[in-house]
Amino acid sequence: MALWGGRFSQQPDDLLRKLNDSIGFDRRFYAEDIEGSIVYAGALARAGVLTPEEAQTIQAGLKQVRAEFESGDFVLAEGDEDIHTAVERRLTEIVGEVGGKLHTGRSRNDQVATDFRLWVMRAIRYIDGLLADMQTALIAQSAEHTETVMPGYTHLQPAQPISTAHWLMSFFWMLTRDRQRLRDAYDRSAVLPLGSGALAGSPFAVDRVWMAAELGFRAIAENSLDAVSDRDFVTDTLYALTMTGVHLSRFAEDLILYSNPAFGFVTLDDRYSTGSSLMPQKRNADPMELARAKSGRLVGLLTGLLTTLKGLPSGYNKDLQEDKEPIFAGVDTLSDLLPVLTAIISTLKLNPQRMRDSLGGELLATELADYLVDKGLPFRQAHHVIGGIVHLCAERACSFNDLSLQDYQAAHPSFGADVFEWLDFDRAMGRRVADGGTAPVAVRQQIDRARAWMRDFSV
Amino acid sequence: MALWGGRFSQQPDDLLRKLNDSIGFDRRFYAEDIEGSIVYAGALARAGVLTPEEAQTIQAGLKQVRAEFESGDFVLAEGDEDIHTAVERRLTEIVGEVGGKLHTGRSRNDQVATDFRLWVMRAIRYIDGLLADMQTALIAQSAEHTETVMPGYTHLQPAQPISTAHWLMSFFWMLTRDRQRLRDAYDRSAVLPLGSGALAGSPFAVDRVWMAAELGFRAIAENSLDAVSDRDFVTDTLYALTMTGVHLSRFAEDLILYSNPAFGFVTLDDRYSTGSSLMPQKRNADPMELARAKSGRLVGLLTGLLTTLKGLPSGYNKDLQEDKEPIFAGVDTLSDLLPVLTAIISTLKLNPQRMRDSLGGELLATELADYLVDKGLPFRQAHHVIGGIVHLCAERACSFNDLSLQDYQAAHPSFGADVFEWLDFDRAMGRRVADGGTAPVAVRQQIDRARAWMRDFSV
Amino acid sequence: MALWGGRFSQQPDDLLRKLNDSIGFDRRFYAEDIEGSIVYAGALARAGVLTPEEAQTIQAGLKQVRAEFESGDFVLAEGDEDIHTAVERRLTEIVGEVGGKLHTGRSRNDQVATDFRLWVMRAIRYIDGLLADMQTALIAQSAEHTETVMPGYTHLQPAQPISTAHWLMSFFWMLTRDRQRLRDAYDRSAVLPLGSGALAGSPFAVDRVWMAAELGFRAIAENSLDAVSDRDFVTDTLYALTMTGVHLSRFAEDLILYSNPAFGFVTLDDRYSTGSSLMPQKRNADPMELARAKSGRLVGLLTGLLTTLKGLPSGYNKDLQEDKEPIFAGVDTLSDLLPVLTAIISTLKLNPQRMRDSLGGELLATELADYLVDKGLPFRQAHHVIGGIVHLCAERACSFNDLSLQDYQAAHPSFGADVFEWLDFDRAMGRRVADGGTAPVAVRQQIDRARAWMRDFSV
Amino acid sequence: MALWGGRFSQQPDDLLRKLNDSIGFDRRFYAEDIEGSIVYAGALARAGVLTPEEAQTIQAGLKQVRAEFESGDFVLAEGDEDIHTAVERRLTEIVGEVGGKLHTGRSRNDQVATDFRLWVMRAIRYIDGLLADMQTALIAQSAEHTETVMPGYTHLQPAQPISTAHWLMSFFWMLTRDRQRLRDAYDRSAVLPLGSGALAGSPFAVDRVWMAAELGFRAIAENSLDAVSDRDFVTDTLYALTMTGVHLSRFAEDLILYSNPAFGFVTLDDRYSTGSSLMPQKRNADPMELARAKSGRLVGLLTGLLTTLKGLPSGYNKDLQEDKEPIFAGVDTLSDLLPVLTAIISTLKLNPQRMRDSLGGELLATELADYLVDKGLPFRQAHHVIGGIVHLCAERACSFNDLSLQDYQAAHPSFGADVFEWLDFDRAMGRRVADGGTAPVAVRQQIDRARAWMRDFSV
Repeated sequence: MALWGGRFSQQPDDLLRKLNDSIGFDRRFYAEDIEGSIVYAGALARAGVLTPEEAQTIQAGLKQVRAEFESGDFVLAEGDEDIHTAVERRLTEIVGEVGGKLHTGRSRNDQVATDFRLWVMRAIRYIDGLLADMQTALIAQSAEHTETVMPGYTHLQPAQPISTAHWLMSFFWMLTRDRQRLRDAYDRSAVLPLGSGALAGSPFAVDRVWMAAELGFRAIAENSLDAVSDRDFVTDTLYALTMTGVHLSRFAEDLILYSNPAFGFVTLDDRYSTGSSLMPQKRNADPMELARAKSGRLVGLLTGLLTTLKGLPSGYNKDLQEDKEPIFAGVDTLSDLLPVLTAIISTLKLNPQRMRDSLGGELLATELADYLVDKGLPFRQAHHVIGGIVHLCAERACSFNDLSLQDYQAAHPSFGADVFEWLDFDRAMGRRVADGGTAPVAVRQQIDRARAWMRDFSV
Repeated sequence: MALWGGRFSQQPDDLLRKLNDSIGFDRRFYAEDIEGSIVYAGALARAGVLTPEEAQTIQAGLKQVRAEFESGDFVLAEGDEDIHTAVERRLTEIVGEVGGKLHTGRSRNDQVATDFRLWVMRAIRYIDGLLADMQTALIAQSAEHTETVMPGYTHLQPAQPISTAHWLMSFFWMLTRDRQRLRDAYDRSAVLPLGSGALAGSPFAVDRVWMAAELGFRAIAENSLDAVSDRDFVTDTLYALTMTGVHLSRFAEDLILYSNPAFGFVTLDDRYSTGSSLMPQKRNADPMELARAKSGRLVGLLTGLLTTLKGLPSGYNKDLQEDKEPIFAGVDTLSDLLPVLTAIISTLKLNPQRMRDSLGGELLATELADYLVDKGLPFRQAHHVIGGIVHLCAERACSFNDLSLQDYQAAHPSFGADVFEWLDFDRAMGRRVADGGTAPVAVRQQIDRARAWMRDFSV
Repeated sequence: MALWGGRFSQQPDDLLRKLNDSIGFDRRFYAEDIEGSIVYAGALARAGVLTPEEAQTIQAGLKQVRAEFESGDFVLAEGDEDIHTAVERRLTEIVGEVGGKLHTGRSRNDQVATDFRLWVMRAIRYIDGLLADMQTALIAQSAEHTETVMPGYTHLQPAQPISTAHWLMSFFWMLTRDRQRLRDAYDRSAVLPLGSGALAGSPFAVDRVWMAAELGFRAIAENSLDAVSDRDFVTDTLYALTMTGVHLSRFAEDLILYSNPAFGFVTLDDRYSTGSSLMPQKRNADPMELARAKSGRLVGLLTGLLTTLKGLPSGYNKDLQEDKEPIFAGVDTLSDLLPVLTAIISTLKLNPQRMRDSLGGELLATELADYLVDKGLPFRQAHHVIGGIVHLCAERACSFNDLSLQDYQAAHPSFGADVFEWLDFDRAMGRRVADGGTAPVAVRQQIDRARAWMRDFSV
Repeated sequence: MALWGGRFSQQPDDLLRKLNDSIGFDRRFYAEDIEGSIVYAGALARAGVLTPEEAQTIQAGLKQVRAEFESGDFVLAEGDEDIHTAVERRLTEIVGEVGGKLHTGRSRNDQVATDFRLWVMRAIRYIDGLLADMQTALIAQSAEHTETVMPGYTHLQPAQPISTAHWLMSFFWMLTRDRQRLRDAYDRSAVLPLGSGALAGSPFAVDRVWMAAELGFRAIAENSLDAVSDRDFVTDTLYALTMTGVHLSRFAEDLILYSNPAFGFVTLDDRYSTGSSLMPQKRNADPMELARAKSGRLVGLLTGLLTTLKGLPSGYNKDLQEDKEPIFAGVDTLSDLLPVLTAIISTLKLNPQRMRDSLGGELLATELADYLVDKGLPFRQAHHVIGGIVHLCAERACSFNDLSLQDYQAAHPSFGADVFEWLDFDRAMGRRVADGGTAPVAVRQQIDRARAWMRDFSV
């Protein structure tokens, strides 16, 4: 097979290099690597290791390398095994021997940890922005549907009437927690390892606090041995992304069900559902199925990295090179998915009539129980009485509204004519006014609080 | 086989009940369930649903139930399928029909979520305390060994001399992050679901903010549908525990290696190592091997729960009953493990001589390079020169100290007689004075900062 | 809190013992441990290490110990840290000093591996039997419903009419693969480690082939170092159980959906669904939700064990003590779940009318395309023509049967009056007669093949 | 940031397409897709759906498409969303309208499952070959070292002297199980789905048994609904690869330790270890660290796919598109890793002197116990006696050989002068002659059996 044939010809030594080299994926760091080096050159100058002129020369050279990357002119050379080598090689070509002073007191170990943290910090901000977009879309759709009644489910069985906005907003709050987790991960990412050397710290008087401030870190790593092998910031971020994936899988499940003809509550915009020329009525919610599926990928990425970290001895081990691809894959997965979901939410067509039609009388059973509680019965006793009424309806194959006042009074003397006023879906929804409840008035307050949350929150 | 025979006789209906019932594990919640109910009775009274006398009767009854649990007098009855049923059944036996008013406006869904969160909040505080104990032990051992030199490793290869305190403190900082994660999980646990009903919120004017304050929650859940199916607080906590597990596996790996006769750096106290009457010199670090192994268990618990949550539709689903055993197992795993590790650290015998004896001259190679940098050479050039010297030593099978000044000056004219002063392990360790470095002076500052962290931190 | 208070008082040394001891879970092995020892005594006698009388004494003593376990009379003593110690301790109490000869040439390492394999072999046979029961139930239900038409789904969107038996039988074949995996795991379990000693093999002439035959093993382990640390048989079995869990989660998802009122295809027997006195129409498919959820638990058990095994050095490590609880939990999970699911299948009420009512005309679109192919059009062209017809129906809000022959002929001249014969769900189902298709005749053959498979298969 | 800037400009619709399209990864299937179509055209001709000429035209066209792929001339067109579309589009360009007949009775669902299975079958054979290469290298190294004594470990503590070949061969047997698992996965992969249509089977008389034989499948899928959504063959294969990963992580751990200067048992060839110009004595076992790490990646891939499959409803769901990248990643990981490890084994330098020097007298304690057993003492009593002798040695800080015959006889009268003959590492190793033991004679037999296994085994 041609497919495999090519591979057979690979020599072990080429394969070893392929295993060892990280340039294939760590070139995504070029901007962070250069930025870190610019600041490090400044710190070396402040420490008297470089003259101001040397530092300026190096910094100007680094900026030129960055410009080459950004313009697409940068050319990898044989031997550029990782992005750090590549940048330093090119720097030295540009500025000459002084370039060789940049790595003074620095090691690949603290350098890569610094670059990686900077990248993760940016990735967190980026994903956080996408989550904010999705939240904004949820609020906007919700604001249109605070009064729209739909069945609320437990065990996927219709249970009580709720506001459609309430259903949509339930996902808003999941995303608030996702963003909090990202913020927490950011806090633990924004800790500067630079100045930790290979493992033992720096013998030069580099001002780590100054470097942290320059690069946007919030603190410095307090122990150089920990600093070079700490990858908690990666797992924290990946865990946060994974939880977002789990939430999206739940949202996806709801949309797959609600867009199914058996439910028919929502219609995905044409752009986000796949028909078939043969079966155009078939609107496969492909992106939602992919959203559901990709939670698996994210769980796998997290599990894989945790397993890789398990049992490693102190200090840097080459195993840690396996830390980057999982977080890249996790960030890319959500970068691709979130804007699609946001667009789906924004263009989602809700079908209020189908929702209302699907409300069965049984969704009012708790109303009847509450009615009796209102008349002074203990809840458990009211619950028991309503059980009898439900049984009666089942025998007669009728619904609560078909029973007479006599029927009700036979069940319990506390029933009065006002019971029929309670047998109304909008009233049932409207009664749940406690904070966080589904009454439209409560949902509007909820939306106000959501907007306030959006204003106040930041990574 | 008798073992299996018994099982064959189990009828599907018994097995169904076994599947469905949660009393086997959720009885751990009895205190939280009762506490939540006491406060809920208060809220019902404040809302006018109960009279003050009714509320007091119920609360007194609940306290009696709690006393029965604590004294071991509580007897499960047929039909007590979960702890909530058991408590309410017993309450009603004690106080009569008024007990049936307690569940007014409350559902099993918001009740169990409230109990579970209270339990998790306590578990977090408990584990946080155990982590603090372990940190205290690390600081105490470190304070004794700031000047004790040992080889620091990268790739498990000796790289540079470091302070033994520095090595120990690297684990201290891992634990700070673990405690931060627990604190973050606590924040997301301390959000009150009570008052959310089955899914749609409460129609009674229960003051959720008041209940939150009474029960020690920090906020109320803003959306009842989300509130009854949100299990993020469980995964957050489990993730935090899992990361602790990963850190402990790394610490375990180090201790297993360092207590191996090939290293011999540390000796576990007799109580924490297992010998053999045949081979008493054999000191198996059994608890460390178990610590390493149990990280796998924790990773599995987290993965399992994430997989269970994946793809669930909105609202409460019975699937969520599978949320408790993983976190119980996770908490128990660390509850058992951490005090043993703390005791091991406190009683650990360090062998400074073995550590020093294992320092090879090659650990000073970076010193020589720094020497040349000090004399003005660019680092990359210095690095190249030292490469030649190392090669020379390899040819002569000697170490740096065996070379003459002429040898050094042949390698590079910048070398002077002061080079020999640099070839000293303590000096090498002592030079790394930048913040976070391994110099004893820096490590003492590090320990001070660690102590300050301990004072300032709280969940 | 009393809950935590008790724990605080635990001393590290008690906790260490709790960590180290395995008697809490490995007592499940008592029968296998004794059986292995009886055979080992025989092998020592055959090797001349024991006299025939000594062997008989020991074997009789072991049988007495077994009887004590089976009658519930066995009493654990202080110091019985694991089941092997407990059995040997009791044996020596019974037979005296000769009991001390039993362990000659044997180590805890090969002994525990032997016991564990025997247990897993039995567990595999047991679970295999439960799977066979479930398959039998599927066949029985299927045999009743080969002609019952229901919508078949892709993307959870109705796609083509299928036989209900075909749907049910799809799970039968999943279970065939599960049983094959168990058989494969059995093959790798049935490899005897006994005679491997601690790691280096036995210096006594124990006949390992004979022992293997006596104990029901199919082969002997070929390398003693591998033998004492090989846990592949555990992961293989756990993987097989996990895949069953994944299959059950898919079956559960179908039943949860199909028992939802929006579908209404099946009704779970009262015993296997949970109503509510308030909402008796609510038939929560609790056991199916638990079945779906428990796949997560199984995935977690597998992941956890794989992570524990990762990176262990050669030979026995105490980490391997963590191998038992996951497989016990996995076996118990399915032991509890499978009989319930089998009972659910056997008592499942199918609602053929609801299934038929849910068939929409669009499910016949492929029939129309096939009609044109039958008339000689290339499939892609036929597909295109039908797209136009579907569009026409959508415009007129009618179905295929409402169109006139002229309408069809306007779409393509190949249409004739016989087209209306094709617009029939039973005919559509009946045409798919190729092997493995949904035509009743093919499904009956499929069921015959399933029955043959059941006859032929064995672990 | 430029890095993120580009992404911001992506429109949701482009992102949707990016989500949905699989051409980015499924083009690896081109050969399998074409091969499947060639055979399918044959089956359509045999069923009379195509004329022989039509079939030949299509088959010739497909071969031309394949040639274009192989020569690199194939150009993707706008709209080629997956490899199947691309191939059919190009086919129709070449052969015209008749190309539109190829898809008669076939669906994307059975087509992709067929292609994917063919690919996996080839991947299994390929990886199996790489494993066989590694086994061959292990045998070759072992054959050189059957007499070379080294310490065998339990708990990473020296326990008994073993043959170095025995240690190496322990990995050989792990790989036999890996290959068995691949063979089992192959069996479940080699089941033909083609002819299952979208879900309901084929209405055309395609001979599925004939197609299976032509394409190298071993059986046909018995249920079309199962056939289109069965991904067990993927998880089976991924599980097999993951177990190989776990085994390699254990081998890696051993090599990392044994190549550490503290052990010094092996030296990795220069090509496979990474030095440093500064610290050339530092031979980082980078590829072994990566081998250890990549087991995490594999565990994650498996976990991720299992999670994706969990809870899917019957039939094809778009979620299944997420099945390919994990297995591609798994196959690539081992394709890259295995040849490097094989080369490392083949070039590994063993250091017999370092191994022998590390043998401590304590490794002979079991010899002394066996000596007494040989003299008739029960093992437990012998064990006790030796404990006393060990204690004596510890007090005198001497080893067994330093004790006098009187010392021994004081410990137990059964000791004779011949005891000193037993205190020899080679003799200790040589005594373990039972099958699977470490005696050179047994190890040579083991190697013979390994060679026989290699001859007999095939996927």
